Amino acid sequence: MTRSNAIGLIRSWVDSANDPLGDFPLNNLALGVFEAGNGPRCGVAIGAHVLDATALEAEGVLDLHRPICAQPSWNALMAAGPKAWAAFRAQMTALLREGAANQAQIVPHLHSMAHVTLQLPFTVAEFTDFYAGRHHATNVGTMFRGAENALPANWLHIPIGYNGRASSVLVSGTPVRRPWGQVKGPDDSAPRFAPSQRFDFELELGAIVGQPSNGPVSVGQANDMIFGYVLLNDWSARDIQAWEYQPLGPFQSKATATTISPWIVMRAALDPFRAGPPMRETPLLPHLADAGDNFHDIALEVTLTPEDGTPETITRTNTRELYYSPAQQLAHHTTSGCPMRVGDLLGSGTISGPTPDSRGSMLELSWGGQSHIKVNGTPRAFLNDGDTVTLSGAAIGKGYRIGFGPCDGTILPALENPYAP
Amino acid sequence: MTRSNAIGLIRSWVDSANDPLGDFPLNNLALGVFEAGNGPRCGVAIGAHVLDATALEAEGVLDLHRPICAQPSWNALMAAGPKAWAAFRAQMTALLREGAANQAQIVPHLHSMAHVTLQLPFTVAEFTDFYAGRHHATNVGTMFRGAENALPANWLHIPIGYNGRASSVLVSGTPVRRPWGQVKGPDDSAPRFAPSQRFDFELELGAIVGQPSNGPVSVGQANDMIFGYVLLNDWSARDIQAWEYQPLGPFQSKATATTISPWIVMRAALDPFRAGPPMRETPLLPHLADAGDNFHDIALEVTLTPEDGTPETITRTNTRELYYSPAQQLAHHTTSGCPMRVGDLLGSGTISGPTPDSRGSMLELSWGGQSHIKVNGTPRAFLNDGDTVTLSGAAIGKGYRIGFGPCDGTILPALENPYAP
Repeated sequence: MTRSNAIGLIRSWVDSANDPLGDFPLNNLALGVFEAGNGPRCGVAIGAHVLDATALEAEGVLDLHRPICAQPSWNALMAAGPKAWAAFRAQMTALLREGAANQAQIVPHLHSMAHVTLQLPFTVAEFTDFYAGRHHATNVGTMFRGAENALPANWLHIPIGYNGRASSVLVSGTPVRRPWGQVKGPDDSAPRFAPSQRFDFELELGAIVGQPSNGPVSVGQANDMIFGYVLLNDWSARDIQAWEYQPLGPFQSKATATTISPWIVMRAALDPFRAGPPMRETPLLPHLADAGDNFHDIALEVTLTPEDGTPETITRTNTRELYYSPAQQLAHHTTSGCPMRVGDLLGSGTISGPTPDSRGSMLELSWGGQSHIKVNGTPRAFLNDGDTVTLSGAAIGKGYRIGFGPCDGTILPALENPYAP
Repeated sequence: MTRSNAIGLIRSWVDSANDPLGDFPLNNLALGVFEAGNGPRCGVAIGAHVLDATALEAEGVLDLHRPICAQPSWNALMAAGPKAWAAFRAQMTALLREGAANQAQIVPHLHSMAHVTLQLPFTVAEFTDFYAGRHHATNVGTMFRGAENALPANWLHIPIGYNGRASSVLVSGTPVRRPWGQVKGPDDSAPRFAPSQRFDFELELGAIVGQPSNGPVSVGQANDMIFGYVLLNDWSARDIQAWEYQPLGPFQSKATATTISPWIVMRAALDPFRAGPPMRETPLLPHLADAGDNFHDIALEVTLTPEDGTPETITRTNTRELYYSPAQQLAHHTTSGCPMRVGDLLGSGTISGPTPDSRGSMLELSWGGQSHIKVNGTPRAFLNDGDTVTLSGAAIGKGYRIGFGPCDGTILPALENPYAP
C-alpha cells in the first residue's frame, strides 16, 4: 500500500504550480541548475517557473546559516545534512505558499521555465549502476542463458551492481553520439571495430547520496543518507556489451553517456508515495532485510520520437517493480567498507514490468531484436540515428503529481572515423 | 630492448640523491604531498629529502606562470599540460643539479623524508582497473574455468577492464580493515554474511591521466595524456568476489581499499626505460595496435611481513609482463566516447610473471589456497590480520634507479559487528 492519500496539494500563489497535471507543485520543490543569461545558478522548480535560489540566498531571504547556493550545484545543500534539507523545504514552502507575505520580493526571481537552459543539477562524485529490477534481470537472463538459468544464483540475495563512469553523466537534452566499439557476432571469425548497431536505452531511477559514510551502514541508515532522486537513462551498446562483459562486467558499452533528468526530486517530496517491498520467495540476510517502506510508487513511461516522426509511448511501468530499494542498494554498496561520498549517484537498473508493453529497454521490447515493435507504424528493434528517447515519471497524488521533468536525449550518427584528428 | 643505457645519473648537490641504490635520484623527481607540521604541501623527492615545492613557488623560485602548488595535490600541474610538465622538470633539475648556484635558497625547504608524513599525491577523479597481465589472466582463468578456457575469448583482442571506486584509494601506510561481505562456498546451501577469509593483494602499476579527452583517442595520443605512474595494490576479497561477480563483474570485493605509492613517478623519468610490446599471437585491430615502445622495464617485488615476523619477499616480477600497455588501456577506455579527466587512475591489473615465484597475488601464489607458500616457515594461503604487504618497484639504470618508495598496508582485523552503532 502506498500513502499517496495522506496529503493533498499545497497551494501556491504561483498559479501554474496548482495545475493538477504539472510536474512541479509546491509539494515538489525540485532542484535544478539553470542559466538565464546570468551564469549558472541554483533554481527551484515551481509550476512553469524556476525560482532563482542563488539570488534569494544572496538577499538573505533564504538563509540556512551557511552558503548553500553559492556554487551552481546542489552538493552544498546535500553536504549540509538532513536538518538543512528540512529547513530548506520549510523556508521555500513558506515563501511560495498561498497567502505568503513577501510575494513582491520573490516575483523578480521567477524565470519562465521555457526561457532557461538547464545544466546538471549536481556534481556527480561517482556513479554506480545496479541491476535491481527482477523482470529486467529475468528477461535478459532468459535471452542470454535460457529460462531455467535466467536469474543468476546470487540475484535473490544481493543487489548486483557495478561501478559506472561519472564523467559520462549528462543532463537531459544533451545529444548522444552513437559509439564505436569492438564487436564480434556469434558467427564472426574475428572481432571488428565498428559503430554500435544495437544501441539502446535503459529506464532507471537514480538515487543521490547526500551524506558520506566510512564503513558499513544499515538499510535504515542508508535510507536517511539519500538526498533525492532523478530519472536516469543508462544508454547501452548491446553488441559492444556482449563481446566485452566476460569476466569483469560492462565497461565501454555503458560509458558513452548516462542521461539524468534536470530536476532532483528530494526524498521528502516522495515520502507520501513510499511503498513496501515486493514478495520475497527467499528471505534476505539480516544486513539487507527490509526496514520500512523504502520503495516508491512512481509511474514511469518512455516515449520514442523518430527523426521525422511523432512521439510514441513505447513502455509504461512503475518503480514498484524494483526488487531492491535504493536504500538496500546503498547499504549493500557499503558492506565492504567502501566509503560513500556526497554526490554519489546510484542507478537502480532497468525497471521493467511483467508485461511486454512495460519493458524498460529496446533489448527487452524487441526480445533481443527478434521481435520488432512498431513505432509510427515502422518495425524497430534498436535505436536509430535521430531518435529521441524521453523518460518521464511522476508520483500521482490526489489533485497533484510529483514529477521530474522530461529526461531526454537524441541519437547523433556515429563519427565517420573516430581517429580522424 | 630497453633504453636504460641511454642516460646516466644526473648528479645533485643533495648528496643522498647520488646513492645508486636510492629510489630518488635527480633523474626521478617523484611527486608527493607531505605534511611536516605546516599543513599539507606539494613535495618533490630528492634522495632522502622532500623539497617543499609549495614554498619554492610562493617565493617565485619555481615559476610556471600559473599556480601549480597552491593546492596540496599535483592535479594542477597535470592540468597545465605536457609543456608545463617539461618546464617543471627542467626548472627542478636546474635547481638541484650539482653546481647549481642558488643552493642556500633551497636548503631551508628540504625536509628529511624520515620526518614527514605522506598523503595521497593527487585527487583521484575516477579509478579503473584493468586485467592486462597475461600470466595473471591465464592463472586465474585456469583455476576458475580450466586450462582449455583459461583466457576469455575477448582477452587477446581488448584490454579487459572494469570501473573501480575512487573513494577507496588510499595512500601507502594507511591500515586496511578486513571486510565483511556476502559469501557462499560451493558446498553451502545458502549465502552468509561474514568477514572475508580469502583477503588478498594484487601487484599492479597505476597510470595517471594528466590530460582530458572527449572522444576516442589513438594509442599514441593516449600515451601523451599519461602524466605518470604509481605502484598500486588492489586489495581483493576473493570469497566475496566469487559470489558476486556474475554477471556484472567485481564490486564490493574490490571496494574496501586500493593502496597507491605516495610518490608519482612522472612519465619522463621512465622514458629511458621504455620497452617494446610482447609477442602477439593474434594481431591487434588497428585502433589498439602497438605504437612505439609504450611498455616499461620496471622490476617489481612484494614483501609480506607477518605481525610478529620478519619481512619475506614472496614475489619478484617486472612490468614487462603486461600484455597491454597503459597507453593501450587508456585508448581502449575512450573508444565509446567515454570522457577522461585529469586525475583518472588506471590500474594495470595484476602483474604476474611466468614462474611460480613471480606471481602477483596470494590467489596465484597459493593456487587458490590449495598449495600454501611458506612465510617465515609457516604455510600461508591468504592474508592474515596483522600482515603488512609492501610493494616496491624500480627501473634500474646505470648507477641509479627510479623508484616509487614503498607501497604498503597492514591488515586490521574485521569489525566485530559492522552494524554496531
